[in-house]
Amino acid sequence: MGRVGLILGSKSDFPTAEKALSVLQEFNIPVEVHILSAHRSPDEARRFASSAREGGFLVLIAFAGMAAHLAGALAANTTLPVIGVPCKGSFFDGMDALLSTVMMPPGIPVATVGVDAGKNAGLLAVEIMAATDKELAEKLMEYRRKATEDVLRTDAEFNTKYSSK
Amino acid sequence: MGRVGLILGSKSDFPTAEKALSVLQEFNIPVEVHILSAHRSPDEARRFASSAREGGFLVLIAFAGMAAHLAGALAANTTLPVIGVPCKGSFFDGMDALLSTVMMPPGIPVATVGVDAGKNAGLLAVEIMAATDKELAEKLMEYRRKATEDVLRTDAEFNTKYSSK
Amino acid sequence: MGRVGLILGSKSDFPTAEKALSVLQEFNIPVEVHILSAHRSPDEARRFASSAREGGFLVLIAFAGMAAHLAGALAANTTLPVIGVPCKGSFFDGMDALLSTVMMPPGIPVATVGVDAGKNAGLLAVEIMAATDKELAEKLMEYRRKATEDVLRTDAEFNTKYSSK
Amino acid sequence: MGRVGLILGSKSDFPTAEKALSVLQEFNIPVEVHILSAHRSPDEARRFASSAREGGFLVLIAFAGMAAHLAGALAANTTLPVIGVPCKGSFFDGMDALLSTVMMPPGIPVATVGVDAGKNAGLLAVEIMAATDKELAEKLMEYRRKATEDVLRTDAEFNTKYSSK
Amino acid sequence: MGRVGLILGSKSDFPTAEKALSVLQEFNIPVEVHILSAHRSPDEARRFASSAREGGFLVLIAFAGMAAHLAGALAANTTLPVIGVPCKGSFFDGMDALLSTVMMPPGIPVATVGVDAGKNAGLLAVEIMAATDKELAEKLMEYRRKATEDVLRTDAEFNTKYSSK
Amino acid sequence: MGRVGLILGSKSDFPTAEKALSVLQEFNIPVEVHILSAHRSPDEARRFASSAREGGFLVLIAFAGMAAHLAGALAANTTLPVIGVPCKGSFFDGMDALLSTVMMPPGIPVATVGVDAGKNAGLLAVEIMAATDKELAEKLMEYRRKATEDVLRTDAEFNTKYSSK
Amino acid sequence: MGRVGLILGSKSDFPTAEKALSVLQEFNIPVEVHILSAHRSPDEARRFASSAREGGFLVLIAFAGMAAHLAGALAANTTLPVIGVPCKGSFFDGMDALLSTVMMPPGIPVATVGVDAGKNAGLLAVEIMAATDKELAEKLMEYRRKATEDVLRTDAEFNTKYSSK
Amino acid sequence: MGRVGLILGSKSDFPTAEKALSVLQEFNIPVEVHILSAHRSPDEARRFASSAREGGFLVLIAFAGMAAHLAGALAANTTLPVIGVPCKGSFFDGMDALLSTVMMPPGIPVATVGVDAGKNAGLLAVEIMAATDKELAEKLMEYRRKATEDVLRTDAEFNTKYSSK
Repeated sequence: MGRVGLILGSKSDFPTAEKALSVLQEFNIPVEVHILSAHRSPDEARRFASSAREGGFLVLIAFAGMAAHLAGALAANTTLPVIGVPCKGSFFDGMDALLSTVMMPPGIPVATVGVDAGKNAGLLAVEIMAATDKELAEKLMEYRRKATEDVLRTDAEFNTKYSSK
Repeated sequence: MGRVGLILGSKSDFPTAEKALSVLQEFNIPVEVHILSAHRSPDEARRFASSAREGGFLVLIAFAGMAAHLAGALAANTTLPVIGVPCKGSFFDGMDALLSTVMMPPGIPVATVGVDAGKNAGLLAVEIMAATDKELAEKLMEYRRKATEDVLRTDAEFNTKYSSK
Repeated sequence: MGRVGLILGSKSDFPTAEKALSVLQEFNIPVEVHILSAHRSPDEARRFASSAREGGFLVLIAFAGMAAHLAGALAANTTLPVIGVPCKGSFFDGMDALLSTVMMPPGIPVATVGVDAGKNAGLLAVEIMAATDKELAEKLMEYRRKATEDVLRTDAEFNTKYSSK
Repeated sequence: MGRVGLILGSKSDFPTAEKALSVLQEFNIPVEVHILSAHRSPDEARRFASSAREGGFLVLIAFAGMAAHLAGALAANTTLPVIGVPCKGSFFDGMDALLSTVMMPPGIPVATVGVDAGKNAGLLAVEIMAATDKELAEKLMEYRRKATEDVLRTDAEFNTKYSSK
Repeated sequence: MGRVGLILGSKSDFPTAEKALSVLQEFNIPVEVHILSAHRSPDEARRFASSAREGGFLVLIAFAGMAAHLAGALAANTTLPVIGVPCKGSFFDGMDALLSTVMMPPGIPVATVGVDAGKNAGLLAVEIMAATDKELAEKLMEYRRKATEDVLRTDAEFNTKYSSK
Repeated sequence: MGRVGLILGSKSDFPTAEKALSVLQEFNIPVEVHILSAHRSPDEARRFASSAREGGFLVLIAFAGMAAHLAGALAANTTLPVIGVPCKGSFFDGMDALLSTVMMPPGIPVATVGVDAGKNAGLLAVEIMAATDKELAEKLMEYRRKATEDVLRTDAEFNTKYSSK
Repeated sequence: MGRVGLILGSKSDFPTAEKALSVLQEFNIPVEVHILSAHRSPDEARRFASSAREGGFLVLIAFAGMAAHLAGALAANTTLPVIGVPCKGSFFDGMDALLSTVMMPPGIPVATVGVDAGKNAGLLAVEIMAATDKELAEKLMEYRRKATEDVLRTDAEFNTKYSSK
Repeated sequence: MGRVGLILGSKSDFPTAEKALSVLQEFNIPVEVHILSAHRSPDEARRFASSAREGGFLVLIAFAGMAAHLAGALAANTTLPVIGVPCKGSFFDGMDALLSTVMMPPGIPVATVGVDAGKNAGLLAVEIMAATDKELAEKLMEYRRKATEDVLRTDAEFNTKYSSK
């Protein structure tokens, strides 16, 4: 089974990455976790991305904040789908990271999710793998059904508690 | 071979969708094009998304502007990967569409590309399909090499023309 | 007497919804409270909206954050007036929710109030119902007069305390 | 039948107001049109709002740009529902008008629609009147069905023209 | 001697107003403090502004947050200079109040200072009064000189402490 | 009679300054016009501001775009009231100039008007001078009355033309 | 004499780069011009930066728009000073490029100038070289004096033409 | 050896300036620290900048928040390279300071780093001095290598700890 690479720009991005990690583990998808900085270890980042396809990766997820170049730097060196997770830093609520991640030039896409949206990044990776994997697709639909049931349960509870009698 | 669905929120989004269409045609990927509004034809949008996997789709691409709910509305009804393309309307340079598309709640990801980034949406769909398709991956790498060569040619030209002698 | 539906995208929106609830209770307007997610329980959201008019609702109020599609998703399935309350999430002070709620495409309006403005949402619902209900209009004017008196009392107090003698 | 008041902050707002006017005329709803500036004719604006309910108005729609105080100034002087339409001026794509209109203090709501969203303002007024008027509600549903049919027709056309054969 | 009116939109604006009050007291300028809401006590706000010139006021200072209409509402009813202080509320760091205060339509100016800039509002009122009052101008220059001396003292201290030896 | 100084950061700001000039001429207020750059002719800017009070000026108006330091640079060198007009350049609709002008540190206020609001800058200068000049105050009230009459005339015209018969 | 490298992310950035080029030519500083994309020719960009110091470069200037990673990608591979020029693309007036360029993580600075500020980028490069080059410093001061004289000439002209007689 | 001037707009900027100071001390570069306000001690700021080159300075670093004019005010009075550090104040996460610092008019560049980016400001100063100083360049490369090694060590640790076994 293909693997997913989780690449963090710095260890401060781990709380967000952990949410993706946890989703992927729930789906039994093998992962490899790296800290590779587009700016402080650019050679390692490039080498990792360049050999990711042969290394058995199907999807890469990049977590980075501020002028978040990591997703783009990986995408520049692989044709695997790269998911970018803009991480909120100390300023602008992550708008800097969001724009740095999503506004890629024509030719090099990054599949961007919301600020700090680690869980959605993990699920998007699963969806990509499930596009051609029936069994995984089944699990994903089951996962979604459970989420819906959670909402319905809360609905019933709030409806009973707060609606006019 | 799997198909890609291109769903436009309104026909005014076609110039952007056309860029995706043209990339997908270049890779000989079968597409189905629809105009389905999350607000004006919500039933049809839902039905399309709900049956997309059985209908042989592997990826959906949604194009919408303003309070761009289309990608999210499709994603709510399928577990296929949904690519969202925020389209620039008359205000805020598409920031409204970008935030409406990318800031999805946990559980329902949308793979967002840049504002009006039709070409990148098409390429991202190809990358997703190529993750498990060697032949397509080869074509994609070839496509990328050509893009690099274009840049190198322009580099040579500008270097010759503008560098100090 | 007609009812007002309060629809929350998630239970985290309850503190804001409670402010609307409390206004509606003050005016003795019957309410029904639901948790219905545009993304995680889209079928239930749609069904609720589609049958709301026959169900005796006069106004719906939707509370949602981030890419806040709930108000729009309800409005797409009913011709009742839908009030949208953008809720502040973890980023951008609710600007994402505000734009996702207010920038609706032509044809499907959402009556948007300020970020987390639960009280104003409740009052707007009352105003809408009072447009054709004299008794309710009287109560509303009385409510407004009291608010004015509160301001005048504070004015007197501050004027006495801080103006130069 | 109740009337709708269309109040423009300046005549430069007319192109947007005209879209609301045209919707209201399509539904045969009597309108009264005024140019009343919160800043340049504040007395007239106040007097108009204060007597609007007795004057047979059910809804007011205010059109204003920049530091758009008009909707708020009317709402301060009536308990009728006031719809605010932020109009795009020369700067910030109408963000100044949007925030000035929607971010009302607790107690005085304004039902805000999108920037320059004259058509949605008109439809929202109709929805408010139709909440307690069955005949109008029927017309509104018919109007909506036609809009859906328009989208479906365009869908069929684009699907035929651009989908892979 | 002329007076300065300090008008607060709500008592929550007092911490900012207090900074202006304290400057004005330092210069022995008589003040009158009011809580007058553009939305909840519009008649009182209007009456105050309309009679302010005859009442011996030379300058008005308005403190308000959110859709901050107070300064504009006062300015609409007087030709005295009105200073607007946008107050930071719970959202957007006061950008809503800033735009609502400063982006006035042609014909009705508001002299806007920075967000929560109570001290500068007070000083601006003094500057306006000192434009035609020599004695006050002298005091103002003395006040400025002291501020400069404070900076110079801190400069000397930091220079000694942190410069390389 | 006191004079008003109109200081432009560059000649590209003249179209905005001209609107202020024209208001001041209408009120027969003597003006002196300068091009003084905070960055390219800082010595001249400083000298002008430092001697402005003795030179018979009562108010200075500064017009500048981008990182608009001119108003602040003048205010740093005089205790006369300085009005700042943020001018729209090629980017951000003048938001850069607005923030650079209005967000002054405590101690040095700038009376900021809206982006490109030359007319309001002129009127604010007149209001400041009229605070202690009865005759000018009369003219100002007359000017305001005329503006109101203009609005009322347009109101009558639109009301007749567009209200339902 | 050391050289300056002008690196463009794409040829569409040339109009901005030309302004820098022209300044550097005016100071007789040898330049080398390249088109090197952080995303489409990442290897060439890296190689160029890695060997720039030995190649006799003293300063690099990077021109790029959108998710402008070029300056950061060069800075990651050299310890020469890298000047970043955010170029305005089709959206957000270059705010995306500005944040992508300036918000670099600790350890890898980019000397950022304003959006499309090619001339200032060129002058900054000259200033850096002139810090340790007396002759160049002399030329720079002469250049500045001329700019001041231009402003003074325009001042005289406007003062004569528009001040009250 | 040349010196670096660290100029703070107010002592509240010291936490950011300290990060630059610490980098410069690590490289044994002599510094001089000043508190000089563009607004409260403009004469001293001007005099310092005007004589900085003769005083043996090679680079100036300015730290300021809000309408951050300090970097520009220094740059207006010297042709030495001026690094601007926008400091986060109480509003807008430092966006006001960033725009006030970076959007300089053509002719007077400021080398801007990220908000509160004291460390990068210090490193940029070292890079500028190292452009023509081999020994310093060696130290800088060594410093960079260590930073890379730190990242690689963290990478190894996270890879071992979190990758699937």
